Amino acid sequence: MECLVLGAGGFIGTNLCRALSAAGVPVRGYGRAPAFSAALPPMRWTVAEFSDRARLAAALDGVGTVFHLLGASIPAHAERDPAEDLRTNVAASLDLIALCRASGVRRIVFISSGGTVYGVPRSLPISETHPTDPISAYGIHKLMVEKHLGLQAYRHGLQVMVLRVANPYGPFQIPDRGQGLIAALIQRRLSGQPVEVWGDGGVVRDFLHVDDLVDAMLHAAAYEGAHSVLNVGSGIGRSVLEVIAAVDAVLGTGNAGILFRPGRAVDVPVNVLDVSLIQRELGWIARTDWTQGLRSTAEWIAGTSRPAWQGPRGAEPSR
Amino acid sequence: MECLVLGAGGFIGTNLCRALSAAGVPVRGYGRAPAFSAALPPMRWTVAEFSDRARLAAALDGVGTVFHLLGASIPAHAERDPAEDLRTNVAASLDLIALCRASGVRRIVFISSGGTVYGVPRSLPISETHPTDPISAYGIHKLMVEKHLGLQAYRHGLQVMVLRVANPYGPFQIPDRGQGLIAALIQRRLSGQPVEVWGDGGVVRDFLHVDDLVDAMLHAAAYEGAHSVLNVGSGIGRSVLEVIAAVDAVLGTGNAGILFRPGRAVDVPVNVLDVSLIQRELGWIARTDWTQGLRSTAEWIAGTSRPAWQGPRGAEPSR
Repeated sequence: MECLVLGAGGFIGTNLCRALSAAGVPVRGYGRAPAFSAALPPMRWTVAEFSDRARLAAALDGVGTVFHLLGASIPAHAERDPAEDLRTNVAASLDLIALCRASGVRRIVFISSGGTVYGVPRSLPISETHPTDPISAYGIHKLMVEKHLGLQAYRHGLQVMVLRVANPYGPFQIPDRGQGLIAALIQRRLSGQPVEVWGDGGVVRDFLHVDDLVDAMLHAAAYEGAHSVLNVGSGIGRSVLEVIAAVDAVLGTGNAGILFRPGRAVDVPVNVLDVSLIQRELGWIARTDWTQGLRSTAEWIAGTSRPAWQGPRGAEPSR
Repeated sequence: MECLVLGAGGFIGTNLCRALSAAGVPVRGYGRAPAFSAALPPMRWTVAEFSDRARLAAALDGVGTVFHLLGASIPAHAERDPAEDLRTNVAASLDLIALCRASGVRRIVFISSGGTVYGVPRSLPISETHPTDPISAYGIHKLMVEKHLGLQAYRHGLQVMVLRVANPYGPFQIPDRGQGLIAALIQRRLSGQPVEVWGDGGVVRDFLHVDDLVDAMLHAAAYEGAHSVLNVGSGIGRSVLEVIAAVDAVLGTGNAGILFRPGRAVDVPVNVLDVSLIQRELGWIARTDWTQGLRSTAEWIAGTSRPAWQGPRGAEPSR
């Protein structure tokens, strides 16, 4: 049976569709018009809003596995008006679940947020049994979709895989969309703009290359074990300042200026995921080399946005 | 400052308003028209829907503590259409939280559901740190409001008390509204109707007299400690068959017939709350004697619904 990717035209979706197609898995896409259609394999596409139940129901016909990546993009929207985010995004996920049941979908792989559902960690690295007390509406709403999926699994035997994903980075992540530190950093260094940091740069995150994430998603689609909630991360914590230094080293831009802004209340101070469960259950581990991952991301951004950047020396923003 | 009770006209609300008034606390009510207005103390009332933001904002003016009992009544509604329950009830709770912040409310005491937020227990009795994997939409939505309240406490210093309440029973619980086993049992016995049981009657619940619950709520309104999520229960598990036997003993109706219906998927098999935390933190414990609690409940139902029942012998349903 075919796979349907909801949000196929976004950052993770584009990478996933390419990987599924390369693996010979028939794949369809649903969502807004893809940002990089030339990069996508030939596939059946439904360009429609998540809230369009009729189009969604039609797209689900004959589908066995759904990858649900929608509502994953802009945490700030949920923050500004949580009730509105609930009425639209979360409710649409519930409608999706009901449509999947009606349509005979066997499995849903849901991209949840390992960086927000746990809240401020009480222990590190954070395992799947850690309490879930998000300090952002985005995290609460991800958690809620997880719970509704769990209910369907318990009550109706739907196969559910919740992937609590760390901070993904890599090709096809568009810089300056309010998410994706690494893409934003590279873009700003390449265009000679100062880099902005919220807080003192000591915030620690678990960065995961999208190639590794997509690999985990393919494993999750085939998994037959007992677990339904898995962390997906590198298991390595890196501070924002460390990331900036690594990006500067890859770009050869030196320490080219940082603008420190006030810290944001929605940011937990540290997030590093315990990935021993997914390693044991799926035999999966993040394999992408950190420096190589940054380099390929930088190459993609340089090639896509075509900045004035011509090489390491040209990127000096101090001129 | 005054208290506002949201859902003041319902089962818990009526009992709470009486207790607050008896304790000399100024109290206002908000919600649908009270079912038992003669039983309520003289108080300022706003008869309006939960979703009416303008009326709600006006009712909050000058209020220091809000008791949020709304959306607590009919689990079956959430079950039938979870997305609709989300768009109405849960979203209205988020609007309420925003209005409370804007209005300067200091504390919200929220009645959550100790019987549903935990899901199928992995250990008994269930402590506040037990995983929360509800098997009902009602439980998920209660949990979600808890999380949004926790976010406000963390981010904006709102004083939040989440009470995860066991199965309450007692006067002013209207029988046959789809919730309240004990009230339904008594009503059916008194009117000579057969008692209906879903499953084999082995389902175990923690029953709490509403006088004890209201006492816990008054304590929670004054608590200054560090905890914000507390179980409120008797800490004693009783099966449905045990409850029926106890009700029959109180009414003198003997073992007067039970209709067994198929079990319901939303019912966890057992729920007994660990109440050691609230005992330690609030000095509160359930004090109502079980038999005496059933007797006063039966007297209230008999006096209110005025069935044909004239005494123990008249209740024999086998005639």
